[in-house]
Amino acid sequence: MSELITYRPGTDEYGYTLGGRSPVATVRPGDVLQVYTEDCFGGLVRTGKDLPSQVCELPFVNPTTGPFFVEGARPGDTLALHFASITPARDWGVSATFPHFGALTGTHNTATLHPALEERVWVYEIDADKGVVRYRATQSGHEVELPLDPMHGTVGLAPGGYEARSTLTCDAHGGNLDTPEIRAGVTVYFGVNVEGALFALGDGHARQGEGEVCGVAVETAMNTTVVVDLIPGVATAWPRLETDEHLLSIGVTRPLEDAYRIAHVDMTEWIGSLTGLEQLDAYQLLSQAGTSPAGNVVDPNYTMLAKIAKRYLPGRAEAYEGVHARLRATAASL
Amino acid sequence: MSELITYRPGTDEYGYTLGGRSPVATVRPGDVLQVYTEDCFGGLVRTGKDLPSQVCELPFVNPTTGPFFVEGARPGDTLALHFASITPARDWGVSATFPHFGALTGTHNTATLHPALEERVWVYEIDADKGVVRYRATQSGHEVELPLDPMHGTVGLAPGGYEARSTLTCDAHGGNLDTPEIRAGVTVYFGVNVEGALFALGDGHARQGEGEVCGVAVETAMNTTVVVDLIPGVATAWPRLETDEHLLSIGVTRPLEDAYRIAHVDMTEWIGSLTGLEQLDAYQLLSQAGTSPAGNVVDPNYTMLAKIAKRYLPGRAEAYEGVHARLRATAASL
Amino acid sequence: MSELITYRPGTDEYGYTLGGRSPVATVRPGDVLQVYTEDCFGGLVRTGKDLPSQVCELPFVNPTTGPFFVEGARPGDTLALHFASITPARDWGVSATFPHFGALTGTHNTATLHPALEERVWVYEIDADKGVVRYRATQSGHEVELPLDPMHGTVGLAPGGYEARSTLTCDAHGGNLDTPEIRAGVTVYFGVNVEGALFALGDGHARQGEGEVCGVAVETAMNTTVVVDLIPGVATAWPRLETDEHLLSIGVTRPLEDAYRIAHVDMTEWIGSLTGLEQLDAYQLLSQAGTSPAGNVVDPNYTMLAKIAKRYLPGRAEAYEGVHARLRATAASL
Amino acid sequence: MSELITYRPGTDEYGYTLGGRSPVATVRPGDVLQVYTEDCFGGLVRTGKDLPSQVCELPFVNPTTGPFFVEGARPGDTLALHFASITPARDWGVSATFPHFGALTGTHNTATLHPALEERVWVYEIDADKGVVRYRATQSGHEVELPLDPMHGTVGLAPGGYEARSTLTCDAHGGNLDTPEIRAGVTVYFGVNVEGALFALGDGHARQGEGEVCGVAVETAMNTTVVVDLIPGVATAWPRLETDEHLLSIGVTRPLEDAYRIAHVDMTEWIGSLTGLEQLDAYQLLSQAGTSPAGNVVDPNYTMLAKIAKRYLPGRAEAYEGVHARLRATAASL
Repeated sequence: MSELITYRPGTDEYGYTLGGRSPVATVRPGDVLQVYTEDCFGGLVRTGKDLPSQVCELPFVNPTTGPFFVEGARPGDTLALHFASITPARDWGVSATFPHFGALTGTHNTATLHPALEERVWVYEIDADKGVVRYRATQSGHEVELPLDPMHGTVGLAPGGYEARSTLTCDAHGGNLDTPEIRAGVTVYFGVNVEGALFALGDGHARQGEGEVCGVAVETAMNTTVVVDLIPGVATAWPRLETDEHLLSIGVTRPLEDAYRIAHVDMTEWIGSLTGLEQLDAYQLLSQAGTSPAGNVVDPNYTMLAKIAKRYLPGRAEAYEGVHARLRATAASL
Repeated sequence: MSELITYRPGTDEYGYTLGGRSPVATVRPGDVLQVYTEDCFGGLVRTGKDLPSQVCELPFVNPTTGPFFVEGARPGDTLALHFASITPARDWGVSATFPHFGALTGTHNTATLHPALEERVWVYEIDADKGVVRYRATQSGHEVELPLDPMHGTVGLAPGGYEARSTLTCDAHGGNLDTPEIRAGVTVYFGVNVEGALFALGDGHARQGEGEVCGVAVETAMNTTVVVDLIPGVATAWPRLETDEHLLSIGVTRPLEDAYRIAHVDMTEWIGSLTGLEQLDAYQLLSQAGTSPAGNVVDPNYTMLAKIAKRYLPGRAEAYEGVHARLRATAASL
Repeated sequence: MSELITYRPGTDEYGYTLGGRSPVATVRPGDVLQVYTEDCFGGLVRTGKDLPSQVCELPFVNPTTGPFFVEGARPGDTLALHFASITPARDWGVSATFPHFGALTGTHNTATLHPALEERVWVYEIDADKGVVRYRATQSGHEVELPLDPMHGTVGLAPGGYEARSTLTCDAHGGNLDTPEIRAGVTVYFGVNVEGALFALGDGHARQGEGEVCGVAVETAMNTTVVVDLIPGVATAWPRLETDEHLLSIGVTRPLEDAYRIAHVDMTEWIGSLTGLEQLDAYQLLSQAGTSPAGNVVDPNYTMLAKIAKRYLPGRAEAYEGVHARLRATAASL
Repeated sequence: MSELITYRPGTDEYGYTLGGRSPVATVRPGDVLQVYTEDCFGGLVRTGKDLPSQVCELPFVNPTTGPFFVEGARPGDTLALHFASITPARDWGVSATFPHFGALTGTHNTATLHPALEERVWVYEIDADKGVVRYRATQSGHEVELPLDPMHGTVGLAPGGYEARSTLTCDAHGGNLDTPEIRAGVTVYFGVNVEGALFALGDGHARQGEGEVCGVAVETAMNTTVVVDLIPGVATAWPRLETDEHLLSIGVTRPLEDAYRIAHVDMTEWIGSLTGLEQLDAYQLLSQAGTSPAGNVVDPNYTMLAKIAKRYLPGRAEAYEGVHARLRATAASL
């Protein structure tokens, strides 16, 4: 019997690493998990006067909810997380420039002699009924509605090898992937590295652009429902996504072309193993039919995706034995 | 009075550089140009037995049609080229793996000790009536139709500074940009570097994926109609595109994050100069509303774009004094 | 009174992360520490038949000795480790190609479709008396002596932020830096991130080339003597080195130009804070007088250094209040 | 009979591209060429008040002397240029920061939203007798002598494929390589791309640091003597250097790790073809015995070198049939 588990962290129960933490709850494959996630600033940035570098304190940024121990999950398995719904828990969100962070400034990693760009906060209205967020310029009267498109910037599991990684970064174990493709209706696959998988999530975005160019999306708290499942004995090297229509692989590294390479090698292999299409035939098909949305080009590791429509693949491409369809059905029944 | 100029190159009239060549014809701002372009292999790869490395000879690959001298064009002006139509001139196209070329292999620039991957050719049917190209696997029976989406991989003008650059590469002067965004309905803007601008185009693709991962799209000859215009006294630093709905900036360099940076700095500046939106307000808006399609991740220089919907910008964003709308009207009247 | 502390790990006492481990011993500033470190393969690769991918098991590679708790060390302090001596503990070392690892092959991060290069082991004689290691070709009779130049590939401390990082990688907290500059006579500086600093070391190399191009140096066990000191209240952002003649900053990230940037920004700042030389004057002097030895171009993060001779700097450049000279004196007295 | 040819360009005879120019003189293999080269600013920056961005005009920067037509040189041959002497033609040199140029600032390629760093000029005394250049801080009294180590930043030949490339950049044909390794006593090898080779040189540096971090070395005019030779029928893919003691390969591209890869693949192949050492044995030897000096990390393409001492190679490594030794002898006889 699948169970509905609800979890809302107390103030001091958020996690700032993947790995290195004890589980907050146990779930079983098939269970439905309802969680609350705080925004990347811990809810401390609420107005234009709350400069992140002043109100937040490292390492207490990008809090995650979890980790959850998945019964039976073992290294070599694949964890499937289906996002049944992602709903803003507030009617506002914030973005900001942050000193020496973002794609268009000297940063910690791309170090320069420039002083930091101005730190500034933008507050967005979130109108869930209308399905929009409202951008407001700070130096002029420009206002405009952008589509509400809720997603989680951060989702991942314990990295294994006794590692614990900051929730500010990402790697093969997931983490701060910051791709707008992780929205409701999507199943995310991760290779399990430790017993129980120990997954966590957070960093809700009411929406974000591709690449997250200034480094901060429309950050907000979320109420999110995830259906959990496990594919035993099947390994997954890099994070993968499945929607009703598409398969996606996520490459995570620097420089950005290497993230592109990882995603496309992984997708070539996925197509091959899923459909029997020979390697170069798969490479060719991906070359003409694939798209490659950027995730983030700002975090310590960048993300870039390989995306292909299932309808272009031979046969009925049933990834991981059709788990996405089953989880979709569970989600529909909620 | 605008004129209709038709030009089909003779066998020995193709160009293999931008810059360093005399014009094949003169056009005036407002003129309509109908040209034939050969495919990137000079039409020499027609069957699976025509391996590109055997039938083609460097530097005679990626032939371009042109250059065309634009009357009155001077350094510091901007050239506008509106693609009224791009129509495959054949009912077939080809793709291939090419030794040490592509994103998922050791290459000239990303050198490794690996022997080359197998060189192989894929022949595609192009069904213009149905609006599809047909992929056929070489090692199995898989066939699938992909949408026909004709585009030019190569368009650009003389680079200035007495340079002549191979049509295999790209830079601020355009060239082998290899982005699927250069399709019919689009206006392309380039900064003029030499008197007469000296633009050329070629490398038609029946379609390509984002990043052009194997390095070769569905290559075919094209019949293409371009409306030419000039914005005097307005400089343009990097190639830009305009559609009815979107503005796009193209970043061109390596590594790929630097191409992303160029495109997004240019778009931030473009939004600012076009709408008066203050710099960080523009940066913020782009961060949430922008997408960033990859062009190529395979050529000597990569391309990555910044793309934003005009409807999100303040006022009526009339780029370059509304030239796109005027050229669109001309195209509609043809 | 400074103390001499000797520590040789038992078989199951090696560490595979920095952070996430309890200290094996406590030392006080001024203490002298004599340790044994195992080679990166845990001593399991001894002949040409011991292929690393067969005899080693992840994550049990690159074992470190430690961590050591430094009494009084607090976040915001700087830890100084002076390498008094690094002596091979064996008369042999090994190197190898490892599948999909190294600079000239497709790798985990620079993913390609190529099968791995051949895995192969090279066994070196280490002749400490003569001060050489002996290379022997595997496919021909070529033998040659290279200078013995013992160093530690891995040294670092707990990363802070509750992180635990694999000893296979490196970052601002140090780790698998793999630079030949960390040899006897050198003082290494790290910013302390957690109480007690919790430093560890390992991965001895009888020598390595710059960039460690195949990914594996001449790996051997070491007997190493380190003098420990603490500079309270002085923060250090990136790993730094000091010799009698030079100052060095280590940049750690990808791509390699970003590692170069980090090192040179840090060195510009170091020169400025140490000597009062104005920022652009320091930048200029470094531009003409600096060298930039590559560390590794193979690990998950690359390292590249900025190096300048102290004699080019104004005044008597006494880094960290002259601690290097004091530790040097302690080392000389042993 | 070898001939001594002297050439000093008139004011309007300098070249700003490699390729696309007619030869200024013809030389034969074995000839000795004495030339004058102007500094990268065309001699226009002489005091702290001569800001480069004000006194120089693009594209008239980095003037080269040449090109020279080498009798008998054909595509597929290798050109050897031995630098017999490089002597500053002035008793002063200059360096500068230049807006949006250099490794530690946002640039044309690594675009950011930062305003440019301050533009400033440093004037150096060159004391040839004492063998030093004298650095003087602009904002304090610090003065220091650095070793005079004259070199050419720019040397190369026509790129072929009908290309003409700015002397500000570099690629497989050479150009603005900006490595301190090109000093007197060195033989440089380039693959010939066009009949006559058409080589040119310029951009003398009284010295530079590795990476040329601010983007500008100690720039000065030079009187330089080059001995020219040709190795017919032997192709060379990337620029190579030979000294009495070392072989060096130059990788040229972005990102910097790709320049490193190119250099080390080329050196692995060079060792193999020169000595018969099997590929992985050569890779291994280079891994332990090689160094990798950075050239520039600032130009449109970066340079990084692979360097190995000849004494570590099997046999008597006579590159290109011993041409270096012969040219060395010629130089000694001058």
